[in-house]
Formats: sequence, C-alpha cells, structure tokens
Amino acid sequence: MSDALVIFTPSGKRGRFAIGTPVLTAARQLGVDLDSVCGGRGICSKCQITPGYGEYSKHGVSVAPDALSGWNAVEQRYKDKRGLTEGRRLGCQAQILGDVVIDVPPESQVHRQVVRKAASARTVIMDPATRLYLVEVDEPDMHEPSGDLERLARALRSQWDIPEITAGLEVLRKLQPALRAGRWQVSVALFKDHGPGPHRLLDIWPGFYEGGLFGLAIDLGSTTIAAHLCDLRTGEVVGSSGIMNPQIRFGEDLMSRVSYAMMNPGGDVEMTRTVRAGLDTLVKALAAEAEVSGRAIVEAVIVCNPVMHHLLLGIDPVELGQAPFALATSDALSLAARDLDLNAINPAARAYLLPCIAGHVGADAAAVALSESPETSEDLVLVVDVGTNAEILLGDRRRVLACSSPTGPAFEGAQISSGQRAAPGAIERVEIDPVTKDPRFRVIGCDLWSDEEGFAEATEATGITGICGSGIIEAVAEMRMAGLVDRSGLIGSAEQTGTWRCQPEGRTHAYLLHEAGATDGPRLTVTQGDIRAIQLAKSALYAGARLLMDEIGAERVDRVVLAGAFGAHISPKHAMVLGMIPDAHLDHVTSAGNAAGTGARIALCSSAARKGIEATVRRIHKVETAIEPRFQEHFVNANALPHAVDTFPELARIVTLPDVSFNTGGGGSEGEGGRRRRRRG
Amino acid sequence: MSDALVIFTPSGKRGRFAIGTPVLTAARQLGVDLDSVCGGRGICSKCQITPGYGEYSKHGVSVAPDALSGWNAVEQRYKDKRGLTEGRRLGCQAQILGDVVIDVPPESQVHRQVVRKAASARTVIMDPATRLYLVEVDEPDMHEPSGDLERLARALRSQWDIPEITAGLEVLRKLQPALRAGRWQVSVALFKDHGPGPHRLLDIWPGFYEGGLFGLAIDLGSTTIAAHLCDLRTGEVVGSSGIMNPQIRFGEDLMSRVSYAMMNPGGDVEMTRTVRAGLDTLVKALAAEAEVSGRAIVEAVIVCNPVMHHLLLGIDPVELGQAPFALATSDALSLAARDLDLNAINPAARAYLLPCIAGHVGADAAAVALSESPETSEDLVLVVDVGTNAEILLGDRRRVLACSSPTGPAFEGAQISSGQRAAPGAIERVEIDPVTKDPRFRVIGCDLWSDEEGFAEATEATGITGICGSGIIEAVAEMRMAGLVDRSGLIGSAEQTGTWRCQPEGRTHAYLLHEAGATDGPRLTVTQGDIRAIQLAKSALYAGARLLMDEIGAERVDRVVLAGAFGAHISPKHAMVLGMIPDAHLDHVTSAGNAAGTGARIALCSSAARKGIEATVRRIHKVETAIEPRFQEHFVNANALPHAVDTFPELARIVTLPDVSFNTGGGGSEGEGGRRRRRRG
Repeated sequence: MSDALVIFTPSGKRGRFAIGTPVLTAARQLGVDLDSVCGGRGICSKCQITPGYGEYSKHGVSVAPDALSGWNAVEQRYKDKRGLTEGRRLGCQAQILGDVVIDVPPESQVHRQVVRKAASARTVIMDPATRLYLVEVDEPDMHEPSGDLERLARALRSQWDIPEITAGLEVLRKLQPALRAGRWQVSVALFKDHGPGPHRLLDIWPGFYEGGLFGLAIDLGSTTIAAHLCDLRTGEVVGSSGIMNPQIRFGEDLMSRVSYAMMNPGGDVEMTRTVRAGLDTLVKALAAEAEVSGRAIVEAVIVCNPVMHHLLLGIDPVELGQAPFALATSDALSLAARDLDLNAINPAARAYLLPCIAGHVGADAAAVALSESPETSEDLVLVVDVGTNAEILLGDRRRVLACSSPTGPAFEGAQISSGQRAAPGAIERVEIDPVTKDPRFRVIGCDLWSDEEGFAEATEATGITGICGSGIIEAVAEMRMAGLVDRSGLIGSAEQTGTWRCQPEGRTHAYLLHEAGATDGPRLTVTQGDIRAIQLAKSALYAGARLLMDEIGAERVDRVVLAGAFGAHISPKHAMVLGMIPDAHLDHVTSAGNAAGTGARIALCSSAARKGIEATVRRIHKVETAIEPRFQEHFVNANALPHAVDTFPELARIVTLPDVSFNTGGGGSEGEGGRRRRRRG
Repeated sequence: MSDALVIFTPSGKRGRFAIGTPVLTAARQLGVDLDSVCGGRGICSKCQITPGYGEYSKHGVSVAPDALSGWNAVEQRYKDKRGLTEGRRLGCQAQILGDVVIDVPPESQVHRQVVRKAASARTVIMDPATRLYLVEVDEPDMHEPSGDLERLARALRSQWDIPEITAGLEVLRKLQPALRAGRWQVSVALFKDHGPGPHRLLDIWPGFYEGGLFGLAIDLGSTTIAAHLCDLRTGEVVGSSGIMNPQIRFGEDLMSRVSYAMMNPGGDVEMTRTVRAGLDTLVKALAAEAEVSGRAIVEAVIVCNPVMHHLLLGIDPVELGQAPFALATSDALSLAARDLDLNAINPAARAYLLPCIAGHVGADAAAVALSESPETSEDLVLVVDVGTNAEILLGDRRRVLACSSPTGPAFEGAQISSGQRAAPGAIERVEIDPVTKDPRFRVIGCDLWSDEEGFAEATEATGITGICGSGIIEAVAEMRMAGLVDRSGLIGSAEQTGTWRCQPEGRTHAYLLHEAGATDGPRLTVTQGDIRAIQLAKSALYAGARLLMDEIGAERVDRVVLAGAFGAHISPKHAMVLGMIPDAHLDHVTSAGNAAGTGARIALCSSAARKGIEATVRRIHKVETAIEPRFQEHFVNANALPHAVDTFPELARIVTLPDVSFNTGGGGSEGEGGRRRRRRG
C-alpha cells in the first residue's frame, strides 16, 4: 500500500496520502482547521491531534495500532517541558503509515468557537485579524543583496502563503536585531484587514514567541469607559476595567458636550485630548493588572455613540448637534492605535471602530446589532439599548430598522431628586406592599432587603446614598401598582392613598421611600417631578419603538431584548408596567447585558464578524425620530402610566393596576381620568 | 448632419460626435490628454484649447468659422477675471457644431513634458501622484443617513471615476467645515500610490482651490542636504535651498557615524532626531522663502545613501558597517511625511523614498539611474556619482551593473592639507604654466583668474581660504602635466623640477600654490600626503569602474557621465590625466550635475517614473567591491598617475605627459621609473 486513507473529525474531511506524510501536511492539503504557529517545526504544539484506533464503522475504516509513526524525540521533549495530554500527538511529527481517523480537539482549531458566557445561542468563531507566525528567513547574501524585510516577505510567501506584507517605521527598527538574535528564525505578528491589501507586520520577536497576543474591546460611553483585555488566540477575557469618562466635566450628556464645543473655540480639541488621555490611562492600568505587557497588546476595537466617536477621532461634533445630524464619516475605520494616542500598547497596534448607522445611531448600536444579530432572527425582535440616548433596533431576517430616541438621563438616575449613578449605596430594587403601602428595597453592594435582619450592619460601610436608574423605575412602577400614583402620573395625597408616606411637597406630593435616620442615610423621596422625568424618558423610548413598529407594519413584537449596562438591571415586569417597552410575553423579554461591549469583543475576535457587521449596517434602514411627526404623536400618547393599558393583553395578564385617579385641586385630572374610564368601559 | 468629425492635435486622435457635444467631453471620450480640475464647470480654465479654421489638407477636412458654438458668458467672465490668450476657448464651454480641428496647447495637457534645463535628451512627462479635483457633494439627508466622507467618495466615483478613497484623521477633521463653507463644492487633493489601493485624501478646501500643490525633492547627503520645491502641476522649481547635514557633528563620513551608533547606546536615535530636525528646518525656510504655505506642500521625495536612509527612518545603521552590509529594507517606501517628523508641511503629506540598490548603493544611486537611464542607453555608459563614496553604474539597454567604491573624502577637500569644502574663497580651478611652473587659479565666488587684473579686490571679501575637491584634482593633474610630479606620484625637488615652488617639507616635497600674503590668504601647498590621498581616492574610483567593465566584459566604455554636485565641477581632462575614470573620448565625458537631485525631482513629478525605477533597480546587477579580489588588484594597478598611460589612446591624444621620474634618495623609484620606461618603449 503506497498511500493511506485519512479521515479528520469533527470536520469529516478525508483524503488519501502517501505513506510518511505528516498529519499537519495532510490537514493543510484538505483544508482541515488545524492550528500551527511554527509551521511544522515541532515548537509551538498548536497542532495537537488525537488519533483514534480500532473500528470506525461510521467511516468504514479500521485503524491499526501502527497507523501513525511512533512517538518521537520532539514530542517527548515537548511533553517533558510542558506536558501533553495522554493520547495526544503533535500533528507535525506524527506521520501517516496507514488508514487513520484523526480528531482535532477544539483547542487545536484555529477557528474554534468561543461560546459566550451569558446564556445565548450566539457563538463566536475565532478569526482574529492579528496572528502569530514562526518563520525562517534567509541570511543576507552580498552577491544578491536584498533588504531583511524583503527576505522576510519572501519567507512568509513561501512558508505561509502570505502574498505581501507592509511594515511601519516602528517595527522596521526592530527587524535587524530580532533576526540576528533569533539566528534568522523569528515570530512575527501579522495583521490582516478584512478588505483587500497586504498583511501588516506589527511586531517581531527572535525565535518562538510565547508571550501571547492580546486585544482590547472598548465600550466608550458618554458616562463610563469599559475595557476588556482578550487573548487573541482563545478569545478569553483576561482582564476588565472601567473608569468614568473624564469628559463628564464638559457636560453630563452628549448635547452639553456638543454645546461646549460650539461655545468654546478649541473645546473639541480639549475634549479629544481628555478622552484619549483617559482611555490611555485605563488601558495602562488594565494591562498592569492583568500582567500583560503593553507590547503584547496589538489591537483595539472601539464602540461608541456618534458624538464620542467624533470626539475620539478629533472631529468637531458640532454637526451632530443640529439637523440633519451629518456624520463626518460613517463607515468602519481601521487605523493606527497610535493615532488615537493609545500609547500604552504596541506602537504598531491597530484600532478598529465599528461603523455608525446614522447621526444618532452610532457604532455602539452597530455593536449591539453584531451581538444580537436581529438580521438573522426568525421572529420579530426589538432590541433596546437603554442609556442617555436609547438606541432601538427592530427587525427580523427580512428587514432591520434602527432609530435613536432622546430619553434623557433620567434612566441613569440623573435629573431625579434623590437620583445617583449606579454605585454601592444606591437603591436598585424597590417593592411596595399593596396593603400597607410601605416600601422595602435593596442597595447595590448588599444582597439583603432593607427589612431583612442584618441589613443595617451590611450597609454600614456604603450607607444608603440615593436611587439609581433601575431603582427609580421600580419605585415608580411599584407606586403605580400600589395605587399611590394614578394613570396620568399624579401622586395622591395621604388621604387619597391611605398612607402617611405620601407627603405634601410644594403644590404636589412626594412618596417617602427612606426616612433620614431610619437606617443609615438621607431622606429619600420620589417626587412628582421625578415621576414626570421618568414619564418623559419612557415615552421617548416607547415612541421610538412604536415608530419602528409602524414603519415595519407590526402591531406586536415577538421578543424584546434589553441591552446596555443599565438594561441588564431593568426588571422586565416593571418596565412593562411603566410602559417603557411595547407589550410582549414576559418570558420573551430578556436582557443581553452590555451588548455593545459584547459586540466589541466579537469584532475583536473575528475579522469575519467585522466584515459581516459592515454589510449588515449598510442594509439597516434608519428612521430619524427628530423629524417624524408620528414620533411626537406616539410620544404624547405614551405619557400615561401605563398608556392605553387595554391594548396590552400581556400586561393585563401579569398585573392588575388599580384604577385610581387623583386631582390636585382643579378638575382637569379628574375629568381626564373620567374620560379614560369611560373609554375603557 | 447629426454628427461632426473632430480631430485633436498634436495627438491626431479623431472621432465623430453628436452636434452640441462639449469639446472637453469629446476629448475625454477619445482619451485625449486635455486637463481639467473642475470637471467641466468653467472654473479652472485648465481645458483651454485652440480651434483651427480653414482647410486642413493633411487631415482632409475643411473647418467652417461656425464649427464651434459662440463665445459664451462663462468664457467672457474668465477672460475678464484672469485673461485668456487670443484664439483660445475653454474646452468645457465650446460645443462642437461641425467638423473641426482642435489643438491642445502644452499647458492644457495633463501629462505635458517637462524638459530638463540642462541639455539632455531626457524629458519628464508630468504624472504626479497627487492631483487636485473639484467635486460637488450631495448634501446630507436624514432619511438616507451617510457620512460626509462617504458622500464625497460617491461624488468622486461618479464625477471623476475614482473608485475608492481613504482618509487619515488629520484631514477628516477638515471635512465638514470645508463642505459647508464651499456649499458642497470642494477641491480635494488626492494622492494615488502607483501600486494598487485607494486614492488617499490629503486635503480639502471649500470651492475651487487656486493655491497650487507643491512637492519637495530632497537630496539627503552625508555632508549637505539640498531641497527643491516644485509645483506639482507644472514641474517648475519654485525654490531651492540647502544646509549642511547637522549629523556632521557625529562624524564627517558615514562610517564614523555608524561607529558612533555602535559605540553610543541610543546614538542612532540621537542622529535620527538630528537629521529630521535639520530637514524640517530646511523645509520650513524653503517654504517661507518661496512664499508657499506649508499646507500646500503635499509630497516629498527623498534620495540618500543607505546609511542616511536608515538614520532618517530611525533604523540603527550598524549592519551597514560590516559584511554582509544588509539593509533593513531595500524596496521603495511610501509613508506619511509626518512619520519622518516633517512637520512644516501638510499634516497628511506623503513621503517617497527611492529603493536602495544594495547595502552600499543607495536610493541616491537609484535616483542617478532614474535621471541618467543607463538601462535605455544604446551605447555603453559609465555613470559615476562622485562623493565620499562613489556610486558607479555601467550598462546599456541589455544590462546594468552597479557598485560603490570607498573613495574617502579626499575628493570633497577633506584629508587634504589645505583642503576645504566647496565654499566662497576655495580654490576650484588651477593651471600651472608648463614653462615657468607658476600657478594661476580661480576661487569660488570670483570669475577672474588670480593673475587677472582686479582679482585681489574681487576676492577681498571672501579671501583665499583653501582648496576644494575640484581644485585639488586640477592641481595634482596640472602638477603632473608640468612635470612636477612623476608617474608614481612623487613630487620632485626644486633642483629636479626647476622651480623654487617645490620646497622641502619633512622628507618629501610640497608645491607652493599660494604664498601667504601674496594676495589675501594663508600659505597653500600641495603636499606629498595630498597627492597620496588623491591617488588612493582615484584608484578606488577607477578600480570600481574597471571591476564593472570586467563583469560586463568591456575593454572600453562609450560614454562617461560624471554626476554628483561635485562631479559637475570636475574637469574631464584633469580627471582623465589623474586616471580617475577609464579612457573615453573627451567629447563623450559629460557632467550630469546633481543627477541624484534630478532623479528625486523626476520621481516627484511622475508616478510612472517611480514605478519604472523600482522595476529598473530590481534588474540592476550589484557587484560588491569589498569582497572582490579583482577590485584590490585594479586598485593597486591604478595607483600611478596615470596608470598604464600606454593603454589609453584618448588620453595620449589630448595630452602629452612628461616622462619624469624622481627619487627621494633611495634607488627604488628610479629603478621603478626605469622599468616603466622600458616597458613603454
């Protein structure tokens, strides 16, 4: 027998090979997904395989014990040095001597799946833009002079089929010392854009480099900046960190930052410098904490809203503050990380910014789309990224629409009388007893409810400092359910509600959530103004969703996904009681956590995902809320708590809302309540 | 008649077009080389044409007076504003109404020829990498949101057939203000590498930009840096300037700079910083002098030797100081000028470095090859770029060889007892009367000979300060012709030579060229050591040329071209008397001036030239003198003045060399002289 049948699992690819062919060679010829950094030199051990012996009736083959060549010295050396799982062989060492079935374990696959931690059907196939290659370069020859770079390029062409490389000055200066220190064997990190063009040489190390390559997934929000440091081979997150966006001193929300740029010559430059410095500091700390050298960090993927996008890039955001909200550039950007003053990482590192969908719907929304893939959904899914602006996606595999809605900062605890950002000590969960009308709550940093034993001791360190976004949503919804607030949003008096906690405050009433000194903390109330702020915010969010439903011609959505760091903490029931989101089966309202951050991680791990989201974004239909009369109409109609409850069967199924109506002296509210009751009846 | 015959001259292209077709449209469809920046909007006036009327028997056509539409308001407006030569029309305004012959004057051709000032067959066709385009961009539409950059790209695609553009952050920030200030009409400077890839947006101006685009041709020498500022549309040099290379403080010659880098950690970084700062200063001053704004300077082409090449790029040149003289990179480089700290020009400006031929034969030699085109020569041409290292090219259309030869700095006046660099006050021409043995000379900055009336007054300001490279060559050659020096290079005594000017100096003699106080200046002599230094230098140069002749199998060359700023000043006769260059008909020894600088200018004006020289350099065969035994052999044999004169018929034709022989006391020289005489006889 001069050749043998080789079957690879799990791919099922098969072929006949000459006796003596290394397994790695066979895998390459068949296009089997078997990793190798050293190209078959027995150094990197990435090509581990598990041969199967015995009868394989499924494949119709019988594998003899001597189907592969014997265990050799290279494998023994590797096993002694680093260990090798029993039964494993190195694919570059084991030669095919007879018919054989070879399994490629997941960790030996280049394009292995990275399953997301959160329960989800979505998996990511590793396909990073930057990979490591071990290569042997010809020594220089005076008689045939050529540059070291040109000989490296030639070696990559012949040993790795890489047609062309390019190199910046920052790596050119490392080339000659590395080649000589490695005796003409070097490891190179090559970055390949998913478009046409050459591979880009990012770095070079003498011999076989084992330090790993890392990338940053950065979610650059108006308020916070979060970064994950990921291993570019495995997709594993090796460190995460976040800071407040230092631009906050120029304005809490985006529009005040745009105003700052308009009112202050050079203000945009100042904000650019500030956010870049913050990002650089964050990345430096993250690398130090994860004990990863800055040099090993070769990529960054950044997602952000359009205003942050422009300010990061050094573009005055003034056009985003006025119709027609024109972006300077909307396509994805691939650039040198150094151009963004990311100085703590590899000097040749690359940065990738996801595309923006529209002037109000940024790269963060694109990242949410990448994470949640509405364009592949069989049923109609509504994805809401809740923040100061809400980004809203609605669609299925036929069509996806997007808009943004100016919810304002109320959902983040801002513009709320006792509001604060989500931080230890902030009330995040609220329940109000429908009979006694007394509240109980939980604060961030403590697992106990406020009426449970040990709560006071457990919160001694943090205190009870205020109400965060999810807390205020639950408080208002609970107040509505307990009959303390009527449909129009009015808080009743003590007399009307039957609880002393409804106390006069100016010409309206406020509900006392927490009395000063009751436990450790200040007096916290939900005021009439707070209710109005939440009403405005939730109406905007709801109106945006409705507008997209109108556009797509749907009366109901099949699923709702709440995204955003804050969206992860919203109780679906309370959101529905408030009328934040359209009616949907409660079991079909899920949280995607920080979907924008997840989208950034996916783009970091996969070139194909970058290409995919760029194509998807081009197909997403954008709806501009600011100029759409129906948005205003929906907004006004959505003001009640909940608006038009009679059209929401799911809401009626989960909660009974007391049919109360308060007035503040005049007859307006009573009359309105009366009309509503009549309409309902 | 529904269409008309249109014939363009000088191209002779012809075609039939519908009545009413604008001349510019017809030209474009026929591929006639008719310029237009505004794309037919009647703004730029680049498309001027001259219609011909009457009988054209050559073309067989008769042109009626009404063959073109009448003079229109756009043309009148342009004429009033800027003037228009009588008989000229704007090609975008004049419509074809009948058979017509249309001449495209040179200044309306995009790819017009730029004839070099120096007499030469070489012409350059304008084909700059950066061009200006006027374009109208769609306004943003909220309903179909897209970035301004993406709409600009779309406009360039539809209006100029430019498939794809890319833009750096430095220009992205200018985009939105320019589009709005120009009411969606902008001028853009687009750079296109001659390889594949998109056009790169370098800058943008509102409306029609009339400021012009400029480029720098930089000759970065070890000793001096010269820069020419050129108009990228016409190729015209609008300013030139030069400075000493500030790296000189690290070492006069290249090898001492390489040593400095080897001996001082960080020394290479220091030298990189120094040369970049010098370059930046030079460019800033040049722009100011030419009254060209830095922003309008969008390209730089740089030529230099390999050590300067590496030091400019920030690469340690240590490998260039030892065999095998490996370059870090040898291919041409296209990079951001900013990466070279060229901060005085447009922040998006590009830099192009010509390819290096070998570790000792740099981008400057490539530029000489581009300027002199030996690869297109019908006869065998020797091109010698004389400097501290001589770069030597030999070849014809079949084959071109290259080498470099370590002549040392003697030809630049260094290591010569009374030597100095070429500067006002330096002796540059010398004649010695064969009878009286008295010298006369000229100094730089004065047109008179030293024995002419008014010389003393004319040189009062500069003085007579020393002898520069061309001066020492003439002095030694004249001494040989006057019988003051024998064939072996020995200076005779006063007794032997019959002149008091040959005076003892230590154990040898020196020739008094200028007595202290004779006119204004110090005592200047040519010593025995000076003669030896010149002998070493000329032997190296000659040996390099001979080595290439051996390699190509030629006993004689047809032409010799002396290049280099210094080469321009060498007297061919004196060079041949010295034996610097192989024997060739004196009429066929020409100077190409600063051919490297000319090559840089050509590359600046022409993308096609860049592509061409890259291909040429790949085909040039490199010969490494350092390891070639025959080089040593030729070097030793070439030591005499002139070596083996009997084999040089051309030299024998132009000069009779006295057959003198001096000895310094021993019999060796006498004996040698005797042997030579015998051999000659």
